This record gives sequence, structure tokens and C-alpha cells, in this order.
Amino acid sequence: MLLHLQTWSEVEAYLRRSTGIIMPIGSTEQHGPNGLIGTDAICAEVVGRSLGERVQALVAPTIAVGMAQHHLAFAGSMTLRPSTLIAVVRDMVASLAKHGFRRFYFVNGHGGNVATVTAAFSEIYAEASLGPGSNSPGIRCRLRNWWESEAVKRLSRETFGNAEGSHATPSEVSLTWHAHPEAVRHMKMEPEIAPMGEFADAADYRRAFPDGRIGSNPDLASPEMGARLLEATVGDLARDYADWMSRG
Amino acid sequence: MLLHLQTWSEVEAYLRRSTGIIMPIGSTEQHGPNGLIGTDAICAEVVGRSLGERVQALVAPTIAVGMAQHHLAFAGSMTLRPSTLIAVVRDMVASLAKHGFRRFYFVNGHGGNVATVTAAFSEIYAEASLGPGSNSPGIRCRLRNWWESEAVKRLSRETFGNAEGSHATPSEVSLTWHAHPEAVRHMKMEPEIAPMGEFADAADYRRAFPDGRIGSNPDLASPEMGARLLEATVGDLARDYADWMSRG
Amino acid sequence: MLLHLQTWSEVEAYLRRSTGIIMPIGSTEQHGPNGLIGTDAICAEVVGRSLGERVQALVAPTIAVGMAQHHLAFAGSMTLRPSTLIAVVRDMVASLAKHGFRRFYFVNGHGGNVATVTAAFSEIYAEASLGPGSNSPGIRCRLRNWWESEAVKRLSRETFGNAEGSHATPSEVSLTWHAHPEAVRHMKMEPEIAPMGEFADAADYRRAFPDGRIGSNPDLASPEMGARLLEATVGDLARDYADWMSRG
Amino acid sequence: MLLHLQTWSEVEAYLRRSTGIIMPIGSTEQHGPNGLIGTDAICAEVVGRSLGERVQALVAPTIAVGMAQHHLAFAGSMTLRPSTLIAVVRDMVASLAKHGFRRFYFVNGHGGNVATVTAAFSEIYAEASLGPGSNSPGIRCRLRNWWESEAVKRLSRETFGNAEGSHATPSEVSLTWHAHPEAVRHMKMEPEIAPMGEFADAADYRRAFPDGRIGSNPDLASPEMGARLLEATVGDLARDYADWMSRG
Amino acid sequence: MLLHLQTWSEVEAYLRRSTGIIMPIGSTEQHGPNGLIGTDAICAEVVGRSLGERVQALVAPTIAVGMAQHHLAFAGSMTLRPSTLIAVVRDMVASLAKHGFRRFYFVNGHGGNVATVTAAFSEIYAEASLGPGSNSPGIRCRLRNWWESEAVKRLSRETFGNAEGSHATPSEVSLTWHAHPEAVRHMKMEPEIAPMGEFADAADYRRAFPDGRIGSNPDLASPEMGARLLEATVGDLARDYADWMSRG
Amino acid sequence: MLLHLQTWSEVEAYLRRSTGIIMPIGSTEQHGPNGLIGTDAICAEVVGRSLGERVQALVAPTIAVGMAQHHLAFAGSMTLRPSTLIAVVRDMVASLAKHGFRRFYFVNGHGGNVATVTAAFSEIYAEASLGPGSNSPGIRCRLRNWWESEAVKRLSRETFGNAEGSHATPSEVSLTWHAHPEAVRHMKMEPEIAPMGEFADAADYRRAFPDGRIGSNPDLASPEMGARLLEATVGDLARDYADWMSRG
Repeated sequence: MLLHLQTWSEVEAYLRRSTGIIMPIGSTEQHGPNGLIGTDAICAEVVGRSLGERVQALVAPTIAVGMAQHHLAFAGSMTLRPSTLIAVVRDMVASLAKHGFRRFYFVNGHGGNVATVTAAFSEIYAEASLGPGSNSPGIRCRLRNWWESEAVKRLSRETFGNAEGSHATPSEVSLTWHAHPEAVRHMKMEPEIAPMGEFADAADYRRAFPDGRIGSNPDLASPEMGARLLEATVGDLARDYADWMSRG
Repeated sequence: MLLHLQTWSEVEAYLRRSTGIIMPIGSTEQHGPNGLIGTDAICAEVVGRSLGERVQALVAPTIAVGMAQHHLAFAGSMTLRPSTLIAVVRDMVASLAKHGFRRFYFVNGHGGNVATVTAAFSEIYAEASLGPGSNSPGIRCRLRNWWESEAVKRLSRETFGNAEGSHATPSEVSLTWHAHPEAVRHMKMEPEIAPMGEFADAADYRRAFPDGRIGSNPDLASPEMGARLLEATVGDLARDYADWMSRG
Repeated sequence: MLLHLQTWSEVEAYLRRSTGIIMPIGSTEQHGPNGLIGTDAICAEVVGRSLGERVQALVAPTIAVGMAQHHLAFAGSMTLRPSTLIAVVRDMVASLAKHGFRRFYFVNGHGGNVATVTAAFSEIYAEASLGPGSNSPGIRCRLRNWWESEAVKRLSRETFGNAEGSHATPSEVSLTWHAHPEAVRHMKMEPEIAPMGEFADAADYRRAFPDGRIGSNPDLASPEMGARLLEATVGDLARDYADWMSRG
Repeated sequence: MLLHLQTWSEVEAYLRRSTGIIMPIGSTEQHGPNGLIGTDAICAEVVGRSLGERVQALVAPTIAVGMAQHHLAFAGSMTLRPSTLIAVVRDMVASLAKHGFRRFYFVNGHGGNVATVTAAFSEIYAEASLGPGSNSPGIRCRLRNWWESEAVKRLSRETFGNAEGSHATPSEVSLTWHAHPEAVRHMKMEPEIAPMGEFADAADYRRAFPDGRIGSNPDLASPEMGARLLEATVGDLARDYADWMSRG
Repeated sequence: MLLHLQTWSEVEAYLRRSTGIIMPIGSTEQHGPNGLIGTDAICAEVVGRSLGERVQALVAPTIAVGMAQHHLAFAGSMTLRPSTLIAVVRDMVASLAKHGFRRFYFVNGHGGNVATVTAAFSEIYAEASLGPGSNSPGIRCRLRNWWESEAVKRLSRETFGNAEGSHATPSEVSLTWHAHPEAVRHMKMEPEIAPMGEFADAADYRRAFPDGRIGSNPDLASPEMGARLLEATVGDLARDYADWMSRG
Repeated sequence: MLLHLQTWSEVEAYLRRSTGIIMPIGSTEQHGPNGLIGTDAICAEVVGRSLGERVQALVAPTIAVGMAQHHLAFAGSMTLRPSTLIAVVRDMVASLAKHGFRRFYFVNGHGGNVATVTAAFSEIYAEASLGPGSNSPGIRCRLRNWWESEAVKRLSRETFGNAEGSHATPSEVSLTWHAHPEAVRHMKMEPEIAPMGEFADAADYRRAFPDGRIGSNPDLASPEMGARLLEATVGDLARDYADWMSRG
């Protein structure tokens, strides 16, 4: 159910039965010693697409570069400034709203996107509120982080305990290895579990977390666990999506 | 310790002993049948100033209008678009950074500001990361919501239980009544406890919450409780501020 | 009559009798050896609020940080870029226009704001002129500098003569001392009357006016004079506001 | 001495003896029943170029479209939004500053430009103040309205008295007729002297001033008077320019 | 050689041998009766990735939504405004430049992107030219349209002749069918060859080209031809990339 | 038929017979050892005005500063950033559209403008497509480069052969000499024909083309040739304009 693989008349047909669309959004940034730079985009995409199959909803192209300025001290990391990402989300939603889409369900793969994407929703709503009358009444946007599904949190806790951490986690690495088995790279972490803590800008981040991980041991990851996490989150998200779409 | 009540040479003297400054940020928006439109700005200001006294830190002028597009269907509510608020935070921080301030401690009075102010911090950091070398190395910004102090949450829970809700709460109304005793307005709420739920844009908010409250009974508020909440949050924030400033 | 101290239903009631609102705008910037950094915001706020009482009009929250880039070489001074301040004024007016406000009476405390706020009015009007039809027909904005009231100019001239100058004037210092008696700080000025002249950017300003004053001797200020100046300007502005509101 | 008619190596040679440049800025907007839409651009250009000859300074291309939103209810009027004009001025100054120009002398033909161009200067200065160190230290911008030269005001007062008004004045029409004798169009005005007054947006302007004039009788214009006004303003501006350039 | 499938230390290693990176950019827009909405993104991605393998260069994540406002009258089409796309390209390049990348080779799948991406390059260069000294000296950007390789043009001409057209061409459809064999959808076109012509905005486009095609008969496409076209363009682009990277 | 030399009521009369307007756009940038910095603005203006006479269409004021960042390493060159130029084009078109103009025929004098002006058209169309319904239905913009008229290309090829080159060409220099005979400056070029090649930013351009020319020998120019080129391009453009205006 990928928008990319439809013709325009197929999208017209879809719109006669649903105005909802799934919008995967990830990031392109370092994920520790053995995690892929595309981890967050890969996770958002694989979850978003599986969810689309499950609920028979269209899935828009993945926003692969998100807000990741705090990772810029590690090679390969990319960011959009928050103001740029707000404009991207606004234009993508406005384009689809023109065709009749009304419910935009963002499946997010990166914690650093949450603030900016939430601000983008407000920017969209504010244009309607402050402007000359809403042109697309009833637009609703929702953001869901795949790793905050209850089933995922339970599974992560049981499997990885306090080695889950909050960046370059074994859970997200597992999910990317499930999606890209050729990317499995086991590697002894030193220290085994990375430090936790706060950070300000990119230079500060690198000082605090020299190999990029926060609080995690991604060497515990496995493709099998990735498959289970995917199933867990898609189940939860499918219920959430169906519930949301069913409301007036 | 208000910046507004200093001379420029007094600020120079302050900077020789500290590079920290407290930045209160609130909002101007409806707060239910008996809550003041200025509730969030009043709370941020009174907490920020009390904190400034406690930790002997300068306090910048309060940002009184925040991101409140979802309240625009109620008369008197004002918002800055997220993109505008980002620019405001960026310029205020850049101005003060020019003088040598490096630690910006935002005391927030409004949940709706969190995403945008967090995005603003990233915009500031991204300018340094992406630009021609940081002009103000070591800028750090922190956002703290006064109502999320542990002591406040405990007190609110014990006193108001499930009537606290999440907008036009008896806690924030109490705090404004403590600051403005002339504003005390008791009023029977109907229903006693407002509904909970989600919302998208301003029209949707008003449909879901017709008198503006979410999940709360603000008639339980009292000036006395406001005084206790103020003491509670300032105690927690003072420890947090001191701890943050003491780090390298 | 502060917007901040109203409930939303009180604002609805107000709008049934008037569509006018007073918008105080000041600045946060150095005001010479003994003047407060908040001078311009304090003056705008105290004048705006007194005017609101006099004419029974609502008063919006004060814009405390204005356009003051030329003061940035003195510690504690803050500025919004003109483009940021334009966005702030635009969003505040648009928010209030949504509720039915139509006449925006800006009470200004800072000469450096005049150009940018005037440009902001044009930006607002241009959006209506160039866009898809005005959403808020009849919006009118007016800017008044409190110190340019005829009564104020007469009083300043009689009392301070050529020691009034144009920045850190005894008049504005008097007004802040009336509002904040605890801030009275007498101090021998050297030279007694500061130099006059032009300036370009902040560095140029500091070169030309090393202690921040332009052409003034603020040591002549007194709280009593502040009270008289307040009465003088409020009288003039009240007539101007009433006249403006009475026009078709 | 038009920049347009130089080669790049001639500009290099000029920069070895002066870092000053004249920047004419006008507007494209209605000028009453017989005034040209290009009046303000023509005036700025003819004055700027004559001044350039007089003081042997380079003259940049005229900014022909300025800030004229209030004239948009009359056919042919054009405006840049203030935010656009600020960007134009900023980019033009930045381009020339790269080559070594440091003093930018704007000769203005339109009152409506004053606020926005003044704000643009502050935007330029603020980028230097707030950014990573000035890249072009010593940039100074000055704005002069040709019609506010003392000699011009004297001449206008003596010749046109209270028929000068403030828009579509006989003085500016005279100057355009001197520059474009083929454009002389005498026409009986009705009323002879247009009304004075205030205005808000473009619709309001047209209501108040139905034929576009404010307070003037442009039928009193003559090419001869245009020649005298040109001589008068160029004399005053030449002294002002020389004085400004001679300062440290 | 996908950036997404590297770790950050692998990118560091890559940068020791090359500063070049391939940037695929496509579009998400209607492609006629049987063409996929993702045609241009698919083409840019498959070409960019094959090229990356051939020349052993890293490939950044594909920009999947480009500038396609003229297709917005067909369901499913998405666009970024030119100003948004400029910001996206600027931020992506700036992020990678921070790590040491200097040569950005954009492989483009959509004619509608050319103007905006070219403008984005100038925006990037202008920031360096106008700002306080280049932070990333030597940044060079190049844009290549895969379908304008000589070998591709020859092959298209020989195979499809005047049925190639300029939108929803049999060449691009062939390439997508090669990449997605499951998407092959033969369909009789009516008329067989679509009309040619010009267009302005989206409504005008749909009036002129009712089924979305311009001048083409995409039913002539085949996966086999897609494979040949891919080989043809990658051969040409590989030579061009190598030549470009070898220059000083 | 210059807009500048009309009154507003004459423009009203014009709009009753035509909604088309000619928009000359040039540039202010180095043109080699003997070419004028204003070459592109002069060419666009003289061609645009001659075309206006020929087809009896109004001609807007010339945009004299375009997108020329790549020339900024040569003294006197000026640029607008692409984002600024997009805003300028957008505001000028929106202003005229308000009066009823619908067809905007840009006569371009500078290759470096093409991408940005084309992007500006898309920005204009996108505002209509994405916004709350078009406020000016039927706006159409067209860009024509005067030197790409068939007649001009033939004449240039016959006369200058491979000495035409692509910047500071004998053709454009001829046209400026025709318009400004006082500017004729013959000068032996060294080398006779400048090198061809590519360039990235301004520094790179100067390295590759040390005297500013690309592939040309402008010493072959003559005023007579300028007159013939003008006649050639105006003939072609007049047919193109008439044809375009005649379409539905």
C-alpha cells in the first residue's frame, strides 16, 4: 500500500474509502559503533509499511532526514534545521490535503524529531486558525513513536533490561538487522553499557557519549528480536490507527 | 534579581560571577470559566522570580505570549506561530550570549510551549553546528515545567486527586490566586470535572472541551494552596538549577 | 483592564462593546549609568495600563523585548531582529483579530521600535491586500510614543531643558522611578550632559556614547516628576484613543 | 558615475579612493490624477544620479519598487512586503560590502519606504552584532529623503504653500516633469486641494483619498520648478554626503 | 555504498579516501494512467545506487518529494514549495560538509526539480560569498538528470521514437518496471500518444493533459528496456563523476 | 508604454483591453574587461521596452539586480540570494495581479536568473495550489531570454562564430553599446577568446575565468550589431508574446 507504487487513479479510488495516510519519519545519524546511520529511517519505514499492510492504509514516502543536530559531531549524521523540517511537514501535509486526505498518522523512528514535528502540527493548525478560513477543515495529525508501544516496551524491558538505554538501543538495532540481515555486525562494546546523561549541542553530545551510544548495549541485538519487536509495535499501532480513524 | 531592574554595569558585575540566567516563558490563553487568560504567564513569572531570589540568579523578562494555537477558539487567547516563537527564543538567547551569558534556564508555564521551545534550542544549536564555527561556544539551554517538579506533583495529587486534570487545573489557578488575590473567582463547574481527551486544532479543541477545561475542577483552587505549590516548585527547581550550573 | 486578568467569557463580553485594545511595547536595553535595563518596557507598561484604566479598554501583555540592536554593546541589552519583531506583532494582531478585535493601539516606550513596528503594520496590511481577500476587514493599527504627547514634551522642556537629551532621559528615568521607587539611584554624571550625535551599529554606538546616554542628564530625574509625566501622557493619549475609536 | 556603466576594474579603481556609494530607492505607485506611477523612482533616480555627479560618487541601480501597500487599491501600484524589501536591502548591501564598500547612502523618493529601510539597516547591523563576528566591520547606512532637504522645504513652501500636501505633491510632480517633459499633463483638480488625513490599509486609503492625492494640488507643478528643486536638494545632499564621508 | 547502511566510523574511513557523495533526488507525483506516483524517486534511487556501486561512492538518502506543484491536480502528487526544497538541500549539504564532504553529485529523476535545485546551489554558494568567510571552502554541487545521458537519449530515440514524450515517458516507466517488476501494468492509451504543449499552474496542466501524460505512450515500456537504460545512464554518469572528482 | 510613465487611471484603461505585462529582469555584475556591470539589466530593459512598443503592452520597472552570486569575486557585482529574488518576483506579480493583470512576460537578460525565476513561478503557483483557493485564477508567467531568439542565435553565429562564448559575449556588449554609445570601449583581449568551462561558487569562477569572460571575445562588438540584434530579438519576441496572449 505504498503511495509510491500507486497510480493517480488508484489514489483517487483509495480516497473514496479512506482519508487517512501513514507518514513514516526517521533520521540519518550515527547509531553507535555498530548501528547503522540509517537506523531511524529504516525503523520508521519498516514499521510504517507493515502497519500500512495491516490496516490497509496508504503509506507516504519516508522522511529520511530529520532533526538530528545533536549528532552532527559524528561523521555521516545529517540534520534539517527545525525550521526546515517544519516547512517540509507543512508542505507534505498541504499537498495531500489538497487531494482530500485529512488524517496524517506519522510513524516516527527518532526521539529527536518529536518536538519539531509536534511544532509543525501546530504551525499547520495555526495557519488555518490565523488565516482567512481553513482551506482544509478537519486536518488531524498524530505522531506515534514505534518504540513507545506498550508491547514493545514490555518486550524490550524483558529482553534487554537496563541495557536498552536511549540511543543506539538493542531494540532499534534489532529491528534494522531484521530489515537488513546483511548489516548484522557484532562488536564488543566498551564499556559494555554506555553512560546515561544529558547533553546540549553536538559538541557536548560527543564529549558525553564518545562512541555515540546512550545507556545501551546494542551488541545484544538480534534479527529475531527485531522480528518480534516489529510484530509487537505493528499490533499496537494498528489498534491505535483504527481507533483514531473511527472517531468523528 | 530582575534583569529589568538592573543597570548595565550591574549586569557586567553579575557576569563576573555567573553566566546563568532564568528565562520565564508563559502563554496568554483561556483557562476555563474562572481561570485567568494570563495564567501561564503569571505562573512562569512568579516561579521564575522566586527562583531567581532563591538562587541569586538574574531573571529575564517573561515571554508572555507563547504557542497556544489550540486555544484560539476562545476569546482573548493569543499565539505565536511555532516559527515565530523559535525566532524569538533564538534572538533573546543570541542577545544575551553576546554579553557572556551561557546557561539559559527556561521556566515554563505552559505545556503547549514545550515542543516549540525544544525545537528552538535545536535551531540555536544547529546554527552553531552548521555555521562557520560557533560564535558562542558552550551555550546550553534547559526547559523546566514548574508543575512537573516532584514536590508539586505530590502536592497536587494529594490535594486535588483526579480533579487536577491537565488544563485550567486547580494547581495553576491556585498559583495565580496566590499571586493575584483580587482575581479569586469561585464558580460552580458543570460538569464538576471536565472531560479528558485529545484534540487537533482550535476548532476541534472547543468541540471537545466546551468551557475550556480539560479534566479539571479549578473551583477547588485556593490562594493558600498556591503559596504551597510555589514553595514546592521553587525548592525543586533551585536544586536543579544549582546542580546544572555546577556541571562543567 | 488587563487582558491577563480576564477570563475568556469576560473578553467575549468586552468585545460586545468595543473592538479596541491597547498593546504596550517596550524594550530591554541599557539606559545609562543609573537607568534600568527595563526602562522602556516599564514605561510602556505603566502608561498603557493607566491609559487602559482611563479609557476602560483592555490592555494586552507588554512586548518587553523590542528592536534594540544598537545597544548590544552594553551588557544586559536584548534585541529581536526586525524580521522577528515583525512576525511577533503580526501573530499577536492576527490572534486577537480572530476574536473580533479590530483596533490595535500600540503604546510605545522605545524610539528604536518605531520603524520596525510601522513596517509590521504594513506587513499585516500587505497580507490582506495581496492575499485571497481580507479575513479581518477593518484592522487598524496605531503607534503612539508616550514621550511625544504634547503635555509631556512641554513638561520635559520646562523641567529638564537641554538636559533631556534623547536616550536615558530624565523623563523616562523619572517615570520608572515613579513605578519602582526602590530603583531610585542618584549618581553624578560625567560629563553632566552626555554628547549628542549619530550612530550606526552597536559598536559605533558605544564608541560615541561610552556610558550609554545620549544628550541627557538622568540624575535630574525624580519619582514626583514621573507621576506628573504619567498623568500628562495619559491625558493626551486618552483623548487620542477616544477620538480614534470614534471614527468610522 | 553609474555603477551600471562601469567595468569591474573601474570599480576596483574607485574603491581605492572611496568606499561610499549612493543607493537610490523609490516606489512604483499611483500619484493622483496626473502624477506618474513611477514618480518616486524617477525622483530618487534623478536626484541620486545628480548627486553622484556632484560628489563624484558611484550610484547603484535604483530600487524601483518599494513599500507601497497602502496604494494597492489604485491600478498599477506595486509593493514589496516589508520583509521582502528588508531582504533586498540586506543582499544589496552585503554584495557591495564584499568588494569593500562601507558607506551606503540611500537617496529615498518615497515616505512609505522610511520605516522599512530603517528596519533593514537594523537587520543588517543585527546580523553583525548577533552573529559570529562582523564580516564587514564599519558598515554604515544612511537614509535621506530628497524632499526633506532644507532648501527644498523652503522652496516648496514659498511656491506651493498649503497646496504642497503630502502625496502627489506639486514638488514631486515638478521633478518628474523636469526629468520627463513629455509627461506634463495639466488637469483641473477636483477639489483643488485634496483632503488631508490618516489611513490604515489600502482600502482605507482609497476611501479617504478617492483620487489618490493627499492634501495637494499637483496641477501647480511645472518642469521649471522641478529643475530648481533638483538643484536645491542636490546642493543640500552633497554637503550632507561629504560631511558624512569625512567622519571617522 | 549506502550512507544509511554505514556506521559512523565507516564514514570516517570513507572520508579519508574521498570527499564525494551521490545525492539522489526524485519526486512523488502522478505519472499518467499506468505510471507510478513514485516514478521519479524510484528512478533517481536506482540510478544513484547503481552509480554508487560502480564508482564506489557513498549514496545519501533519496529526497523523495521534490518540486512538483504542476502535478497537484492529480491525486497523490506531492510538492515542496521551492523555498522549502532550497532549505532542504542547503541543510543536507551543510550537514555533510561539516564532516568533510565537499563534492555533492545530485542524481535527479525529475525535470521539475532542476530550477529549484540549481537555485539551491546558488543559495549555498551565496551564503559563503556574502557571509563572514566560507566555513566549508571548496563545496561544489553538480546536478545530473539520468535521462539526459547521451547513451540514454540514443536508446530512447531508437526504441520509442516520438512516443517518448516528456512526462510519463516509456523510458522512465521502463526503469521503474525494471526496479519493481510487480508494478508492470499494461494499458491501452487513449490517445496512443499524448499531446505536447505548455502549461502554467496545476489547474492549467490538468486541462492540457487530462490523463497526466505529455507527448508519450508509456504502454511501450518494458522491464528489459529499463535494465538497458539503467546500464546506459550509469555508464555515462560514472565517467562524468570520475572526471568531475578528478579535477582540482 | 512604460508603467512608470502612466497614471493610475491610464492603467485602468489599459486593463480593459489587456491583462498582459512585460517584466524586464537583468543583473548587475561584471562583464569582462570592457563590458558594463549593468550589461544584463541594460539589455533586458532595452529589449523589454522595444517589445512593449511593438506589441503595445505595458512594461514594468526593470529588476536590475538578479541572481549573480557566481560573479561576486569581481568588484561591483551584486546579487540577491535566490530566496530573496523569489520573494521579489512573488510580490511584484501579486501586486499587479491584484489590479487584474494575469499574464506576466519576463524578458530576461541574464542566464543566471533562469533557475531562480523559474522557481519563483512555481512558488507563486504553489501558493495558489496549496492555499485556500486561488485568489488570482489564471495567473501565467513566462520567461524568455532575449539571446535565445532564433533570429539572434543565427545572427550571433554568423557574425561572431566561436567568439560568441557564453559570458561577456560580443552580442550582449553590442546591445549595450547600441543603447549607450558613450560606453564603447575597445580593448585587446588576452587571450583573444576566453576559456570555456564550468564553475561552482564565486571563488571558483574567478580562478577559472580570471578576467571575467567565458569563451568570448567582446572586442568584436559594435553598436551597429547591437541595433541588428535588438531588431532580431524584438521581432521574435513580439510573435511569441502575441501568440501567447491569444491563447485561452
